[in-house]
Parts: sequence; C-alpha cells; structure tokens
Amino acid sequence: MLRIAVLGVGRIGRMHAENIAAHPRAALAGVFDTYAPAAKEVSEKLGVPNFESVDAVLASGDVDAVLIATSTATHADLIEKAVAAGKPILCEKPIDLSLARVNACATKIAGTPLPIMLGFVRRFDTGHAAVRRAIEDGTIGDLHQVVITSRDPGMAPAAYIEVSGGIFRDMTIHDFDMARFILGEEVTEVSATGSRLVDPALMAKCDDYDTVTVVLTTASGKQAIINNSRRAVYGYDQRVEALGSAGMAVSDNRRLNHLRLSTEAFTDQAAPLMNFFIDRYADAFAAEIGAFVDAVEQGKTPPVTFEDGRQALILADAALRSVREGRVVKTSEVA
Amino acid sequence: MLRIAVLGVGRIGRMHAENIAAHPRAALAGVFDTYAPAAKEVSEKLGVPNFESVDAVLASGDVDAVLIATSTATHADLIEKAVAAGKPILCEKPIDLSLARVNACATKIAGTPLPIMLGFVRRFDTGHAAVRRAIEDGTIGDLHQVVITSRDPGMAPAAYIEVSGGIFRDMTIHDFDMARFILGEEVTEVSATGSRLVDPALMAKCDDYDTVTVVLTTASGKQAIINNSRRAVYGYDQRVEALGSAGMAVSDNRRLNHLRLSTEAFTDQAAPLMNFFIDRYADAFAAEIGAFVDAVEQGKTPPVTFEDGRQALILADAALRSVREGRVVKTSEVA
Amino acid sequence: MLRIAVLGVGRIGRMHAENIAAHPRAALAGVFDTYAPAAKEVSEKLGVPNFESVDAVLASGDVDAVLIATSTATHADLIEKAVAAGKPILCEKPIDLSLARVNACATKIAGTPLPIMLGFVRRFDTGHAAVRRAIEDGTIGDLHQVVITSRDPGMAPAAYIEVSGGIFRDMTIHDFDMARFILGEEVTEVSATGSRLVDPALMAKCDDYDTVTVVLTTASGKQAIINNSRRAVYGYDQRVEALGSAGMAVSDNRRLNHLRLSTEAFTDQAAPLMNFFIDRYADAFAAEIGAFVDAVEQGKTPPVTFEDGRQALILADAALRSVREGRVVKTSEVA
Amino acid sequence: MLRIAVLGVGRIGRMHAENIAAHPRAALAGVFDTYAPAAKEVSEKLGVPNFESVDAVLASGDVDAVLIATSTATHADLIEKAVAAGKPILCEKPIDLSLARVNACATKIAGTPLPIMLGFVRRFDTGHAAVRRAIEDGTIGDLHQVVITSRDPGMAPAAYIEVSGGIFRDMTIHDFDMARFILGEEVTEVSATGSRLVDPALMAKCDDYDTVTVVLTTASGKQAIINNSRRAVYGYDQRVEALGSAGMAVSDNRRLNHLRLSTEAFTDQAAPLMNFFIDRYADAFAAEIGAFVDAVEQGKTPPVTFEDGRQALILADAALRSVREGRVVKTSEVA
Repeated sequence: MLRIAVLGVGRIGRMHAENIAAHPRAALAGVFDTYAPAAKEVSEKLGVPNFESVDAVLASGDVDAVLIATSTATHADLIEKAVAAGKPILCEKPIDLSLARVNACATKIAGTPLPIMLGFVRRFDTGHAAVRRAIEDGTIGDLHQVVITSRDPGMAPAAYIEVSGGIFRDMTIHDFDMARFILGEEVTEVSATGSRLVDPALMAKCDDYDTVTVVLTTASGKQAIINNSRRAVYGYDQRVEALGSAGMAVSDNRRLNHLRLSTEAFTDQAAPLMNFFIDRYADAFAAEIGAFVDAVEQGKTPPVTFEDGRQALILADAALRSVREGRVVKTSEVA
Repeated sequence: MLRIAVLGVGRIGRMHAENIAAHPRAALAGVFDTYAPAAKEVSEKLGVPNFESVDAVLASGDVDAVLIATSTATHADLIEKAVAAGKPILCEKPIDLSLARVNACATKIAGTPLPIMLGFVRRFDTGHAAVRRAIEDGTIGDLHQVVITSRDPGMAPAAYIEVSGGIFRDMTIHDFDMARFILGEEVTEVSATGSRLVDPALMAKCDDYDTVTVVLTTASGKQAIINNSRRAVYGYDQRVEALGSAGMAVSDNRRLNHLRLSTEAFTDQAAPLMNFFIDRYADAFAAEIGAFVDAVEQGKTPPVTFEDGRQALILADAALRSVREGRVVKTSEVA
Repeated sequence: MLRIAVLGVGRIGRMHAENIAAHPRAALAGVFDTYAPAAKEVSEKLGVPNFESVDAVLASGDVDAVLIATSTATHADLIEKAVAAGKPILCEKPIDLSLARVNACATKIAGTPLPIMLGFVRRFDTGHAAVRRAIEDGTIGDLHQVVITSRDPGMAPAAYIEVSGGIFRDMTIHDFDMARFILGEEVTEVSATGSRLVDPALMAKCDDYDTVTVVLTTASGKQAIINNSRRAVYGYDQRVEALGSAGMAVSDNRRLNHLRLSTEAFTDQAAPLMNFFIDRYADAFAAEIGAFVDAVEQGKTPPVTFEDGRQALILADAALRSVREGRVVKTSEVA
Repeated sequence: MLRIAVLGVGRIGRMHAENIAAHPRAALAGVFDTYAPAAKEVSEKLGVPNFESVDAVLASGDVDAVLIATSTATHADLIEKAVAAGKPILCEKPIDLSLARVNACATKIAGTPLPIMLGFVRRFDTGHAAVRRAIEDGTIGDLHQVVITSRDPGMAPAAYIEVSGGIFRDMTIHDFDMARFILGEEVTEVSATGSRLVDPALMAKCDDYDTVTVVLTTASGKQAIINNSRRAVYGYDQRVEALGSAGMAVSDNRRLNHLRLSTEAFTDQAAPLMNFFIDRYADAFAAEIGAFVDAVEQGKTPPVTFEDGRQALILADAALRSVREGRVVKTSEVA
C-alpha cells in the first residue's frame, strides 16, 4: 500500500483523495488545504489526518508520496519542496503557466531519482490508449495524421477564464499532450488559428480565444490537428483519430448510457455525452492513481513525466505565438 | 435485350415498368391494365405500346416475357395463360391467397421449362443478401438463429386491410420468404402469436392481427423469429440478423441520408428511415429485373421460384392456424 | 451505514462483498461460507469478521442485513431463517429451482414487514433502465412489443449445466424478469421453442436446450420475445428493444472501450463486448447494493421483490412445459 | 427535355453521358472526343450522334447545352467558345490550373446571361447538403467550426500526379468548395501544412504533398479545417462536420451495404466504404444534372457558378503559398 497525501482538496483534489482511498494498492495518508474548512470536511468524511501545513505533510513518516492538486501557481514550489523532502510526486497539470518558471524548476530538481508524474489523465482513457496501442502494435501501420477533437460542454466562468493563462495553456494543454502521446515523436512546428465566437466580449477582454485550431508537425512530417471549442452545447466532445499507412483508429465519445431512441421525429438518437471531465474520465483518473503506484513501487519512470508537462507548455507557447504572428512557429523558438 | 411487357400498372407495376425501361439489358415491350387510363398514361410517358388485352400481349411476337403486377386474385390465372403462351414470367407476390388455388396452378404448369420467378424483392437487398453470403461462405459458421424485424411505417387503409388476406399472407409473407432464404433449409414447425394493438377495432372487424411474432423451426432445430408491426412510427424498419456458431451478421436499416445531428437536447440523431418499400428497396427492385433477365437469357432457374411462393404461403397458413389453435403447427399439416 | 453480511463467498458472493465494502452507505459486516478457506481469504483481504455459522451471522448485533449468495438449493432455507431472525435480505436469483419450494417459502414468510430483495441485477443497468423510463415517461407511447436478446459468450461447464435446472430456470430466468420489468404488466401466456445446436450431445444427456426462443403475452396483448443462446462467440450479447405506439427504445451492448478500427480489410470494427456478467453488469451490481440500502433504510418496498422471483420461475416452468407439449401454456396452469 | 451534348467522354464524361441519357428531363444530344474511338463507342452504345468537332456541336440546332468533361487545359477555351455560341455550360472542375487564365476567361465571358455551372458534385450529396441545411434552418445555430475529412483510397498513377497541378488544385479543390459551401461566407485567410508520407519519392520529384491540412478562416472568424491524404487504405473517406452555437451536424461515410459482422475476433465490423468517387457520389452526379437542367430551364443562377470555381482556385493558390512560406496567406494576396 502506497500512502499518498493530497495537497489541495478543491473539486479535483477531493476526487483524487476519494480515488486514492478506494484504490486497492493505495491508502490516503491525509490531506491539506490552505482553505481549512475544505480540508476538514474531506479528512472527516474519509477518516484521514488533516495536516496543518505542507511542511507537516512532507515531514510525516506516514506519507510515502504526495499528490499536488493545489492552485497552478503553487505547483512548481511544491514540486521543489517535495523533491527536497524525498517524496514521489503526482502533480496536476499544468506545472506552471510560465515556461521560464517550469525551466527553473526543472533545473532545480535535475537528477532527482524520485518519480515525478504529471496528471495528463487522458492518456489513461481506455479508448485513447487503444489508439496508441493500435499504432504500437502495427495495426494501422506508419502514422500519418492525427485528429483530436476536444470541446468543452460550456464556457467556464469569466473569473476562471481571466486567470486561466489562455486557452492554449489551460485547455489545449491536454490535447498537446495527447498529440505527443499519439504521435510518438517530438513536434517541431506549430501553426495555430484562434477565433472569438462563443463569447467575443470576454475573449476580447482577456485577449484570448474560445475556438482554436492547431496543426502540429514532427520532423518526419507527421501531422496532428487539434480543434477546440469552449462550448459544444451537445456535451463534452472528446475524440481521437489516427490515420496510418495501414488503417485508421478512432477513439469515440462516451455516453451516459447505451440507449438509442427512435420516434416519429427522428431515429437512433443517442443518450447525452458524459459531462464533464470528472465523469468522462472517471476510469482514467482511477487508472492514473494505479500507474503512479506502479511507478513508485516498482521504481519505474512514470508514464507521464515532468518533461512531458514542460513539452506541452512549449507547444502552448508556440501556438499562442503562431496565432499572434500569423506564421508557423518552430518549437525551438520558444523552448 | 429482353423485351418484357408489364401486366397491371398500378403503383408497383408502374415502378417495374420504369425499372425495365431503365435497365441496360431489358426493354419495356408494352403495358396492359384493365383500368385503361392508367395504361394509357404509362404507355405514353414511357413511349411503349398500350396493349388492348392480356391475350394481345401474350400473342405478340415483340414480347419475350411478362411481369405480372395485377391484383392478387388474377395472378394464378395469368401465370397459367402465360405458360400456355410460352412466355417467361416474373410475378409479384403472392401467387394467390388460397393455397388450394396455388396448388392447382402448380399442377397445371408442372413440367414447364419456362422460367417463372416470384417477386420476393428483399432477397435482392444488398444488406440482406450479404447476410446470406456470410452464411454461405462460412464467415459465421453453422446457422443457429435468425431474427427478422419487419415493421411497416403505418397501417394501410382499412379498405386494403379488409381484402389483404390477413397479416400473415399479406405482410409476413415477405418475411417467411426471407426466413427461408436465410435459413437455407425448409421450415417444419411454426408457432405464431397475434395481437391487436395498433388498431384493435379494425383488427377485430377483420379477425386479423396488427402485431405478430412467428417462430419457425427447421428439422435440424434452426430457429427464425419474425416480429411484425403494422405501424412503427419511426419508419419502415427492415432488419435481418443471423447468429451462427462462428459469429453474427446483421443487415441494418437504410436512411434517407447519412446526417447525424447533436444538440443540447440529444446526440447522434440519425436521419429518418427510408419509407416505404418502393424507396427502401429501390436498388433491390432494379436488381430483381436483372436477375430475371439473367434467368431467361441464360436458361437458369430463377433465384426465386414458384415453389418459393408456394412455401411462403404454406408458412402463412400454418402461422394463422397456430395463432387460432394456440399450438405449434407442423408445415406438413397445411401443405 | 447499513452493515451487511454476505453468506456464500464464491465468485458472485465475493464480488458482492467487495461492492458492499466499497459502497459509501454500506459496510461489510462479515462473511460466511461452508467452504472455510474461501471465507477466510475474503475476510482477511477485506478485513472483516469471518463468521463461524449462519446462526452466528443472524445472531450478531453488528449485522443489519444479509446478502445470500450461497448455492441455489440453500436460498429458501436461508430466507426463512433470516426472516425469523429479523434481518432484511438481498438474495441472489433464483429463489429455488422448484416452484413448490418457492411457494412454501412464500407461505412461511407471508406478512413479514422485512425488505426482501431479489438479485435480478439487470434492472439496474443504466441502458435497460432507460428503456423502462422511456415507457414510463411516455416517450415511446403505449408499449406493443419487446425484444430481448440475451446470449452467453460460451457454454458453461457440463458439470454446471447438469445441475443448473435447465436453461429456462438458469439463464432465461433473467430475461423473464427483464420482460416483466419492461412490460409493466403480468404475462398470461407463454410459448417457447427449444433447440440443441451448440452442444447437442450434452443437451440430449441433460434433456435441456442451448438455443431457445420464448414469446410472452400479456392480457392486453403486449408481446415480449426472448432469444437465448448458450454461446455467442462474439461475446456476451445483452440487448433490450421496446416498440411502442410513439417510438422505439433500444438498450445496446457495452464494449471494452470505444475504439473503432478501419483497415484495408474492413471498416469501423468495434472493440469486443464486455464479457461476462460480472464485468458487463459491474455498474448494475453496485447500483443494486445502493437500491437495497435505500429500501432498508427508508423502509420502502425493494425494487425487486420475492414475488418477482416467484413470477420469473412461473414463466420458466411455463416455458419448459410449452416446449415439451408444443403449445401455448397459460401461466395460470403452472402458478 | 434539355438536350445536352457531352464534350470529352473519358471516364467522367462517359458517366455524365449515361446520367444525362437516363435523366427524365434531359436528353443526350450527342458526344465528341478528340480520341475518336472513345466517342464512337459511347455514341453507338447510347444511340446518339458522334459529332465531328466541337464546332459542329456548338453549331447544332439540336444541342441546347454542353457538358465539358475534356482535359483540364481545354476547359477555359471551351467555356469561351460555348458562351460565344450561346450554349449553357456545365463544366467539370477545375476551370484551369492557372488563376491568371481563369481570370482572363472571366473577363472574356463577363456579362453573359448564359447559365455556367461548375461541377463541384459533392454539394449534391444528400448528407453533405443536409449539413448545409442544418445551418440554414438554424438547427445548429451560428456556425463556428467545420471539419472536412477527405481522403482518397489510393495514390493516383505517377503520370497523373505529375500533371495534376499539385494536391491543392487537383484534390483539395473539392474540399475548398465544400468549405465555402458549408461556411456560407468568404474565406479571408489560409494556413496550410503539407507532408510527404504516402510516396515521399514521387512527392519530392513533383515538389508536391500527399498529406495536407488546411485551415481556412472567414472575416467573422469561422474556421474550416480540411485534412487530406492521397491514400486511406480503408477506402474513400468523405466526411463533413459542422459545429455551431446550437449543435453539431455530421455527414458520415457511405458503405457498400448495411451489413455488420461480429465474430470471435471482433464485433460490429462494417462493410467497405464506397470506392471511388464515381460510386460514392453516383446519386450526387445524377442530382447535379437535374440542378443544371433546372437552372437552364428556369433561367436561375446555377447552384455552383464560374465564380465558385474561381474562388476555389484562389484558395488552392493561397494554400500552396502558405505551405511554401510557412505563414498565413490572405486570399487578397493571391486573388
């Protein structure tokens, strides 16, 4: 049993805490949150210690590892502290909104043998992972083109959008990682297009975009196309398609149930898509905990690394620059 | 070019006339109808002779074959006449509503070398035929169970229902033939269930049923299940499923187009089903003409024979007796 | 927290024990099994008491309710004992293979206010339940016809088949309950057809069938068609279709993941079906525990009652008699 | 009956000739081809005049209109001649590979009241047209994003590729028109990415690409993403997806038949896609003839105009420049 403490028990941290508590090979070692009532509630509900401080967590002999689910701005600091304390880390994405800060953190923790895993949970979705497997086992031959459709069911609150770091660093970041996961080789060029169609006023205010397309290219010419929207009224649309020299693999959406309805007005109507990420990727979040436990217990490199987090941020920065400058941006320009 | 005359140019006969005219290896030799205005209109529209009588058609040296699409009560007589005149026949189903009459006709035409083909058009549907092929080529192994879903989009007019001969002889007759086509061996036992749910008053008046289930069994134990409804408000539902020792083959419905719609209220809604049989089986009706031409020109046994028409009627009579008597009826009891 | 003890920790009992342990509103109060090593292993793994006897379980003040997952032959006795001890019961299906024994049990426990719930788990499948809801909320109008496809992925071992009570009491029993659940009114007539196609030798030896079709009819004429096979090589096929006056609702199969593959040889191939019932109905088994907790804690009638278990067995007996006698059997004949 | 002569009876011209002959409101007035044997064969098979020259066609009083299906290099000349002769025109795409030549032609025919229709056949596909209709009737609200997947089943012969004008002018040209058709407003910016993955040697030799992605943007920010491959081994992949503020409409692929197969190795495998464009768009090609007849007979503007052909070529030129220069290209730069 790996004893994991959770730092930050907002919506996502709380879900992680419950997943750890329910996992057969993990135990919840306790929680901490700067907002005391949240930490108290979760600690009482799950019957685990409510630590007084991060330092207390890191000093505890009953804590084998930490899961960082605090606000983004604190991630890099906490990673550095946990490494110093010798605790393996599972950190929610992104590492930081600033690539400079991420690079500084990378320098500081360079050489640590501790497993540090990034929370790009979609890699653990059974469908998306099956696409990757269809490439690795040769089913679809050499990969040529990837199409990632990733649309949120609705615009987040303005207050969230304003501090999100922009759509590329906040939302597309998951798709950048998915593209890298499926492509299996590094992206060298980024071309992005951004529009303000869902909430033009808010987007103008934030100098942000709500509808974007990004085309990523690798040195060998493999292409990955990402299309994002901040609002697909029909639900959380999460698809991955890979075209190879020998075939195509598609990971399709998941629905609330397997009902199909036909009436005088229509036929074969499906049930709603699973909304939102906590439901859609519930299996994946649970599998992510298992992968972290495996990495720590077996001393393996985690399936998603700190460097994966850094590379996704490089793509986000390149995409933003591409939109601003109306040109293809090489990743070497921003790395 | 096989020159085919069409006897009877109501809705179905007219469609056949157009299909013959459009067929690359057939020519429309003329039409005849006891209702003169209909024959006149079709002959003028398609630019072909309007024969004065059946005898004139059968006596014509410019007519190589006849397609019989007159009212059911005349089919057997016309078959006998056409055989006497030496003309190959493509006859719309059913041969007659009375098995005794069909048997008498069979006796009368026994030994004729002329191709006589029955119009069980669904055998020529590409999907249904692909199910049969998946059995013949071994893809799904030994056949165990067939499920035929066959539902009309709406109840026919009362005037039609009253003289239809009942649901088994009028509507299920197609499914009996489809079951025999897919099963590939003769049915020995029939068990049927009838309900009055769509229009109970009309059904009671006609002593008929609008919702029926029939289970057919062969000597080796293969089962075919037919479910019929006189009204599926979502459209003309035509599916065939075959379960074998090595797999399952399903022929699914066809829709007006390949649109899929998602909105806030639903996802993945399909376009309406093709209504009604003339549209749904348009390709099959055209292929049926081709199969008839092949049979005549190459001197082959037609893919659907007079005996196939007789066997389907035997199943209809057995089904009706099964509902009436609440028991399994052997086909040998009614044949 | 409802403290539930599990009697019998074979494959199914063990799964129930784990589900109870994981349920947020239930606690596993302990286990018992006549095969001591099984009980020991589960009790140690889940950290709960390993009771020495059924009597010890029923006498314990730390046990609020019992889940009966022992061998079928013991169910009725244990129900009677638990009722005598005042413990609410969740009992795996079937109550007994003998309707006489079930009726005797019913008489003995008549009038008990204790919640007694039967484990017809499929009612808790989100897709199947959505079909029922589409009827209850009027979406598909008045119900006319139900089609239940229920096929096992492979024949059970001969040793199991020989003592199973026959396909109707062992396998179709689930579909009889599903038919009653969807129909929403009692079945009055049963017509069944049985074949020996998957393993004719074993079926002949057991005087049993491996491929069956059952047609159930209610007093108002609603029809439910069940088709079963002991072996569908493509996997555990579990579908429910309901045709009503205003539409059709279909609960489709569930697959291992949402991958779709296309290659030179084929297109749009789906991932395998979930095999077998423990995986396919994992969500439903968990929901079943929740429904039982609700019934006990809120003093409600359980969603599946002892009488539901008895009615399903009546349908099984009627189906067997129908096959043997080649006729429609009224449920009043066997009840 | 509109009497249409076909100029050029290679593979596509011949298909058009047959469609015209079969159309209820059109008649095939004759054919012409510089390769005499081809014209002779078609004229004899369809029983229509074999004209000696283009001039003879244009001078004939029995020719109401012409369909131009000759080699691309002759299109502009023939359009000019036909306009001079007062004949309405249905011209295969593209008008010319050179935008300068197209512009010159436009100048020359400016002001003609004759209907000139371009053969962008995909607009007449029932599925793609239904996507457009779902936008026009408000079903999916304001349009935000279009995704066009367009992949050929296999690389054309090298000899064809070498004179094709490059993938953008030869293949993507159809998708540029589809994007404009779905977008409903002009594209202002083009960003394209090209790779050599299917046949790198041939692509290098021709300085061409076989795998491309193009992102088109309108002044209001609507985006259209096109992804092309010269070889999808699973078949001719033709999909159109439109995301709007109120929903999503998808026009899916069409298959040879509606069979779905399941075996021990897989489930729900579909029949092959329709290959190639002549089969996939057979309905659309027939509808295109009807639309041309309507335009001529009713004096309406054709649904696809010369200007539509010109605009698609502008997008092709912009896309090529975008790939070459690694930047977003404004359509105003190339127009």
